[in-house]
Amino acid sequence: MAEAKGVKVHGFWASPYCLMIHHALKLKGVAYEYVEEDLQNKSESLLELNPVHKKVPVLVVDGKPIAESLVILEFIDEMWKEPPLLPEDPYKKAKVRFWADFFYKKFVAAFYAITESEGEAQEKATKELIEHLATLENGCRKDLSSKGPFINGEKPGLLDVIIGSSSSGFRVLVDLVGMELLEKEKLPLLHSCVASFVDLEVTKDTVIPHEKMTGLILAVREKALASAPK
Amino acid sequence: MAEAKGVKVHGFWASPYCLMIHHALKLKGVAYEYVEEDLQNKSESLLELNPVHKKVPVLVVDGKPIAESLVILEFIDEMWKEPPLLPEDPYKKAKVRFWADFFYKKFVAAFYAITESEGEAQEKATKELIEHLATLENGCRKDLSSKGPFINGEKPGLLDVIIGSSSSGFRVLVDLVGMELLEKEKLPLLHSCVASFVDLEVTKDTVIPHEKMTGLILAVREKALASAPK
Repeated sequence: MAEAKGVKVHGFWASPYCLMIHHALKLKGVAYEYVEEDLQNKSESLLELNPVHKKVPVLVVDGKPIAESLVILEFIDEMWKEPPLLPEDPYKKAKVRFWADFFYKKFVAAFYAITESEGEAQEKATKELIEHLATLENGCRKDLSSKGPFINGEKPGLLDVIIGSSSSGFRVLVDLVGMELLEKEKLPLLHSCVASFVDLEVTKDTVIPHEKMTGLILAVREKALASAPK
Repeated sequence: MAEAKGVKVHGFWASPYCLMIHHALKLKGVAYEYVEEDLQNKSESLLELNPVHKKVPVLVVDGKPIAESLVILEFIDEMWKEPPLLPEDPYKKAKVRFWADFFYKKFVAAFYAITESEGEAQEKATKELIEHLATLENGCRKDLSSKGPFINGEKPGLLDVIIGSSSSGFRVLVDLVGMELLEKEKLPLLHSCVASFVDLEVTKDTVIPHEKMTGLILAVREKALASAPK
């Protein structure tokens, strides 16, 4: 393990991007200090550490800040080698990065499209999300030939951290659209990835109570619907 | 150099993302076959190689396809090690990835905001682009402590490939907004990066005549302005 004296994470409890950093560090066995940020009233130190995007998460190692969750995850994997989150083979590594990028591009948009709409618009967004999930399932199975339980194989890798850390918000989506989205029969690999991830010891300290997450997402939803053009 | 029998690039002549792949492969000294795609009438093989995004560039190595330019660039750097495009130090590598991500997020949006608008909207978008350029210049100087001529130092690296390969479109922007955007005095590192990059031997075969690029961007602009809500 590389030597790093001080490791600190600035985050927000409900952010899946921040959970990814928690889980990656815990999987690597890295001890760190956590600073919860108030996103309505950002601290001076957050603005200094991430002046460009002014967002969480920020990882600080020996006083040096790194922002943007995917950049941080790759850094963690290079700084602390074991257990590896990315495969060694360049082609497989490229495929993991491709599907990570797909998740970031498609799922964040789909999440907001669903939580900030109703009626037909929400139905359309839900249909699109279901298509993205099928694309992700089939792509991961084909490109990474995973035998489970994780997409990475026997142990969780980058995609498992990313998808597994997004599961709290996902469960609220399920309630909102009134249907199961990660069906075991239709999406066996994604279902197994999430189910196995939330069972890991490293997620024990970061569990978000379902009612708390629901409360936050519904509050954001109400605000968005109230300000949407009629 | 890793052994790869067949290397093929599917691209479109005006795409900066495709130029990045050309330039990265040429910098590594990798011989490859090029397939020009008609984006109005995508080939069966492009749709098979990139069924998810249906976009260029696609790099095919020994029959195996990789899509998304940043993913491809990282793959090229791992597959063919010399000369390296990314620094070895994990922290500097993270900073290069952070600024590459910044360029992708901010500059593509700014490019379309300028080319597809006029009047006040175009002025606002231009002002934003100028701010992004200053942020990028200052960030690269601070985080990567480059002494030039490239952001990567004496030899071009990932950010030089990304920014240098976008220079043809940039020159059309300069005409469109009627002012120099990469002033040597204000943005010495970015100016030096682009000037040094277009002087490299590896860019000789990919020069796009200014009139040809202008013609394409103005045609896209006219179409966008004609269909914009009044």
